[in-house]
Amino acid sequence: MLYFNNDYSEGCHPSILEKLALTNFEQTPGYGMDGYCLRAAALIKKLCNNEMADVHFLVGGTQTNLTVIDSLLRPHQGVIGAESAHIEVHESGSIEATGHKVLTLPSADGKITAAQVADCVTAHYEDEAAEHMVQPGMVYISNPTELGTLYSLDELTALSAVCKKYGLYLFMDGARLGYGLMAHGYDVTMADIARLCDVFYIGGTKGGALFGEAVVFANPMISKDFRYLIKQHGGMLAKGRLLGLQFCALLEDGLYFELAKHANAQADRIRETLDALGYDYLVPGITNQIFPIFPNSMVEALRRDFCFNTQQKVDEAHTAVRFCTSWATEPGNVDALCKKLRELSE
Amino acid sequence: MLYFNNDYSEGCHPSILEKLALTNFEQTPGYGMDGYCLRAAALIKKLCNNEMADVHFLVGGTQTNLTVIDSLLRPHQGVIGAESAHIEVHESGSIEATGHKVLTLPSADGKITAAQVADCVTAHYEDEAAEHMVQPGMVYISNPTELGTLYSLDELTALSAVCKKYGLYLFMDGARLGYGLMAHGYDVTMADIARLCDVFYIGGTKGGALFGEAVVFANPMISKDFRYLIKQHGGMLAKGRLLGLQFCALLEDGLYFELAKHANAQADRIRETLDALGYDYLVPGITNQIFPIFPNSMVEALRRDFCFNTQQKVDEAHTAVRFCTSWATEPGNVDALCKKLRELSE
Amino acid sequence: MLYFNNDYSEGCHPSILEKLALTNFEQTPGYGMDGYCLRAAALIKKLCNNEMADVHFLVGGTQTNLTVIDSLLRPHQGVIGAESAHIEVHESGSIEATGHKVLTLPSADGKITAAQVADCVTAHYEDEAAEHMVQPGMVYISNPTELGTLYSLDELTALSAVCKKYGLYLFMDGARLGYGLMAHGYDVTMADIARLCDVFYIGGTKGGALFGEAVVFANPMISKDFRYLIKQHGGMLAKGRLLGLQFCALLEDGLYFELAKHANAQADRIRETLDALGYDYLVPGITNQIFPIFPNSMVEALRRDFCFNTQQKVDEAHTAVRFCTSWATEPGNVDALCKKLRELSE
Amino acid sequence: MLYFNNDYSEGCHPSILEKLALTNFEQTPGYGMDGYCLRAAALIKKLCNNEMADVHFLVGGTQTNLTVIDSLLRPHQGVIGAESAHIEVHESGSIEATGHKVLTLPSADGKITAAQVADCVTAHYEDEAAEHMVQPGMVYISNPTELGTLYSLDELTALSAVCKKYGLYLFMDGARLGYGLMAHGYDVTMADIARLCDVFYIGGTKGGALFGEAVVFANPMISKDFRYLIKQHGGMLAKGRLLGLQFCALLEDGLYFELAKHANAQADRIRETLDALGYDYLVPGITNQIFPIFPNSMVEALRRDFCFNTQQKVDEAHTAVRFCTSWATEPGNVDALCKKLRELSE
Repeated sequence: MLYFNNDYSEGCHPSILEKLALTNFEQTPGYGMDGYCLRAAALIKKLCNNEMADVHFLVGGTQTNLTVIDSLLRPHQGVIGAESAHIEVHESGSIEATGHKVLTLPSADGKITAAQVADCVTAHYEDEAAEHMVQPGMVYISNPTELGTLYSLDELTALSAVCKKYGLYLFMDGARLGYGLMAHGYDVTMADIARLCDVFYIGGTKGGALFGEAVVFANPMISKDFRYLIKQHGGMLAKGRLLGLQFCALLEDGLYFELAKHANAQADRIRETLDALGYDYLVPGITNQIFPIFPNSMVEALRRDFCFNTQQKVDEAHTAVRFCTSWATEPGNVDALCKKLRELSE
Repeated sequence: MLYFNNDYSEGCHPSILEKLALTNFEQTPGYGMDGYCLRAAALIKKLCNNEMADVHFLVGGTQTNLTVIDSLLRPHQGVIGAESAHIEVHESGSIEATGHKVLTLPSADGKITAAQVADCVTAHYEDEAAEHMVQPGMVYISNPTELGTLYSLDELTALSAVCKKYGLYLFMDGARLGYGLMAHGYDVTMADIARLCDVFYIGGTKGGALFGEAVVFANPMISKDFRYLIKQHGGMLAKGRLLGLQFCALLEDGLYFELAKHANAQADRIRETLDALGYDYLVPGITNQIFPIFPNSMVEALRRDFCFNTQQKVDEAHTAVRFCTSWATEPGNVDALCKKLRELSE
Repeated sequence: MLYFNNDYSEGCHPSILEKLALTNFEQTPGYGMDGYCLRAAALIKKLCNNEMADVHFLVGGTQTNLTVIDSLLRPHQGVIGAESAHIEVHESGSIEATGHKVLTLPSADGKITAAQVADCVTAHYEDEAAEHMVQPGMVYISNPTELGTLYSLDELTALSAVCKKYGLYLFMDGARLGYGLMAHGYDVTMADIARLCDVFYIGGTKGGALFGEAVVFANPMISKDFRYLIKQHGGMLAKGRLLGLQFCALLEDGLYFELAKHANAQADRIRETLDALGYDYLVPGITNQIFPIFPNSMVEALRRDFCFNTQQKVDEAHTAVRFCTSWATEPGNVDALCKKLRELSE
Repeated sequence: MLYFNNDYSEGCHPSILEKLALTNFEQTPGYGMDGYCLRAAALIKKLCNNEMADVHFLVGGTQTNLTVIDSLLRPHQGVIGAESAHIEVHESGSIEATGHKVLTLPSADGKITAAQVADCVTAHYEDEAAEHMVQPGMVYISNPTELGTLYSLDELTALSAVCKKYGLYLFMDGARLGYGLMAHGYDVTMADIARLCDVFYIGGTKGGALFGEAVVFANPMISKDFRYLIKQHGGMLAKGRLLGLQFCALLEDGLYFELAKHANAQADRIRETLDALGYDYLVPGITNQIFPIFPNSMVEALRRDFCFNTQQKVDEAHTAVRFCTSWATEPGNVDALCKKLRELSE
């Protein structure tokens, strides 16, 4: 069985394990106060071109989302997101468990627009009974989205402007950020993101680390006391150096971006095959996620040798599936997948 | 500087890193549904002599405490604990953040008694205004406690009985469980704990793992849907196999217990030196934590070469400190500490 | 200005004020333990034909909704409701503030169907990642709905069955229950509701009381410790007798139902006028709420003399508004409204 | 049976019922936006000598406490209070249900001191592991306290200064504020309180109203969006005018203060009798609560004719009880109590 079902099936890039082994018996302070976390934070500030940025390391994405959102919203505020947003759909109600509503906007491609946000906020304040409704306090976007799409620089700039205009925080979930930044022809840099968002995170778990997400606040005014919230929500790793070490390994020499490029290149090869065979996509993409639409019989046939996810039924006879490549995807496995796709399409 | 300040300053036992390296490119299902988690759970059930037990793996202790407690209490219930309980003092209000009060009982040595619990519960129900107060729903104990003390088999049996009598869950925080079970002359086994508690956890973070706590529910009736709660609280590790692998490494050949024995033996050597020099303790102990009372000048002098924690002021001239050994403590460092203790006591 | 904007613009039926005055200097126990609450509960049990029922009195509807829902759901569970449900739209995120998600179903008329509920629940459990999503734990319906529509006996029976089948609680928000039960040709009785729902409430605030909602649990197994939750959520009125007294006044001689009949009759008069003038409705109705669709100019013209709510834009030129009659609506005011409607339609 | 068990056994002062009857059929906007609320707010601002003050009306004390505290604390903050504070002891964990810990200080008389607060806060920030503990964010005091004691102007001034110094909000629970302000020789005015506290409330429920508490924020900066929080916590009364009307009735001509004086005068008569008979008090007092210490046999004998609360056991043979007078206490009942006290003391 060959796995194209996600980007977290393997352990981590070997250089991380080496670094862990090499430093294993060093004694360091706990809870993220060690030198490796400091150094990783410095690397990230440089990538963000923002010396003011405040960087924190957490273990996983849901934990990061709930902690960031809970730290910035007042009790009566909610977070605006696409109806397909990870926080709305796949985090077991973690945002609600901190007391906050997810205010959803319709979205076909996983993205939301500045105009949608503006409409949502103005509709709220124009309502006589505004205080009977949840007040929008933040916009959550994921980039790449859950459907692998990307926000252009113009779109991000517009979202940032609308958030500033209406006093909302802009938060980007970057669980797969590397795959986005390295996508062919993508016009957004990490420094752009750091400039346009109030807070975002750089995903390690899906990008070659054992685990770990690096949260970047644009300025320390809004991250005041964030460490209390990390601890309160159970996200403060005792041996915090494990997080610092991993991000050092990923960011010191650009490994994070190399790994993302590799994944995207493998995905591009699959896309080329699909294009040649004439398949449609649920939504087009340029990152490591691919959502082709197949006849149901084809899906069944593929399942014999490959592991992948069903995204959704398109009609009675067709299903959209998801192939996901990763930093660890073997080119040989992509060969096998492409070969099988061609065979089944004859 | 030699570190005796905690038991999580280093990475992990090298055999864990080896196991991680060896299995690094295996592809496994995520979120704890992999074979290593299954195998680790089986090992734990065997140690607990309970095939019915339901085992889950989480990353850290605070996360484990808040998830277990939130999963078992109804909204109007609180958890009884010592006034020095970790959940009361050092978890940033994580229990309250899930909506529950910690109902504290006075304790000089970190332990609470069955009689205290019975008094607390009966006082609640005898009060006419009981429903104006938080209803006790669970008893939380740590073993070893935050002061390194241990519950005897009789004490645990009595606590278990009083909990059953009054319909409370009994939950043991075993962040340092190995150090307790391996203490010289301790009469309690893991099977006893599994039999007497409704739920407890086996601490990996402080016992030689990179991270990880294994939660054991006595039966699956009370752990229904626990995985939803892990996910909701951000505690579900995407690469769950990292947890399974570590507990396999620790428990397959008794490594967990060997490491604890080592730490205790090093602590015993420090205790022997302190005894010989005639120092008193804040509270006596037989595990890896030692709480001697020193003249303030002695504390200052020790700080030049050794890193350790201040526990509390005892009087104007004396302070209780904490030395903590671990699975990783070098005997040579203990030699150095003992030598310095003797020098400073001349 | 004549008010048709809601059913809580006036104080209360005068017989309630009389009762308050008459009993004002009696000394009674607080917090709902007085004889009036007992007596009101007995009257309600009789109306429900259920001696086992457990009755509690709260001050307002949002308070009642959040307390009932929080008391019955486990932390990882959500409540299913129409996308127009009061708890979703107009309670300032009160359900989320207790940690629970509202799982919305599309609805054109404010109602949801048993088939929708079944689909929602089976989709949840069929998903491999079910535990990454909020588990449905309850169905919330309002009857009459926010759009004035009513569930038929068949529809309620089907909802009750589907809830039983899938282990969900069925909760009916009866803020306007009297107006529903007294609607011409409505085939459901309070005993039916008590038999088919696990919990529901009888709205006093909108039905002639100063305030007050009577919650009825089908059996005391599911309302265990409900008083703790009332108190915890700040809903336990010190002078609880005020609630008992009001429900005694409303239910002893059928006043509650007489008042509802009056409101419905006045609404029927408005509907007859609208029908004669040929206006359409956003949704048809037989209770005290009417949602006609008017040209925008008509809405503006009406605003000069009448106070009413805008429900929604229907198209660029038309708007659906809401007229609401109540127990206190003066027939003369209805005459004036009907006259103006005719004038403006010439 | 004569009742001295609390100050909320009767309905309300008759002038309130009259006002309710007189205005019953007026149509007013809901949710506290009516003219009576506006007028009552104006009266309160004048009493507070603060035109900037922001006034809100809620139904009950627990509701008020939880809403105010939740609105002002960030998620990782707790509220400092006496170990006997109402929010700690008698509100069913309502503060914890909003996610916040109550940080208790020891207190023999129900009061806490500025020095205690300063110690608590400095201890927090001096701790290396501060972020592992709940951060103090507010000081809660009740005045009169749960033991009927009062803060002097000096004490309040010192508390206010220490709160400003350390960035804490000062919140006064004034459930029995009138009884305090009217106590013989008390040197604090409502304007003092409004000047020294960030937020406080004027208790109506225990002071002659049917229900109702008037929250006063010193300035609208800190009460931003408070109405959202009232609604979210289920505290927004649909017929908000009931609250406005009652506070108008109580404050227009000083009735609130007259009623409190009456209660205090009756309590003074009991105190004089007790003093003459030589009884001790658990804590001395000058408001409407009296806590004498009686032999157990005396308590039993009194119970035959009088209803009152047991406060606590003092020793095996003695018990402290609580007599509570109110705005409604009949002087004849006090005569009867004093007579019985003398008889039983012969």
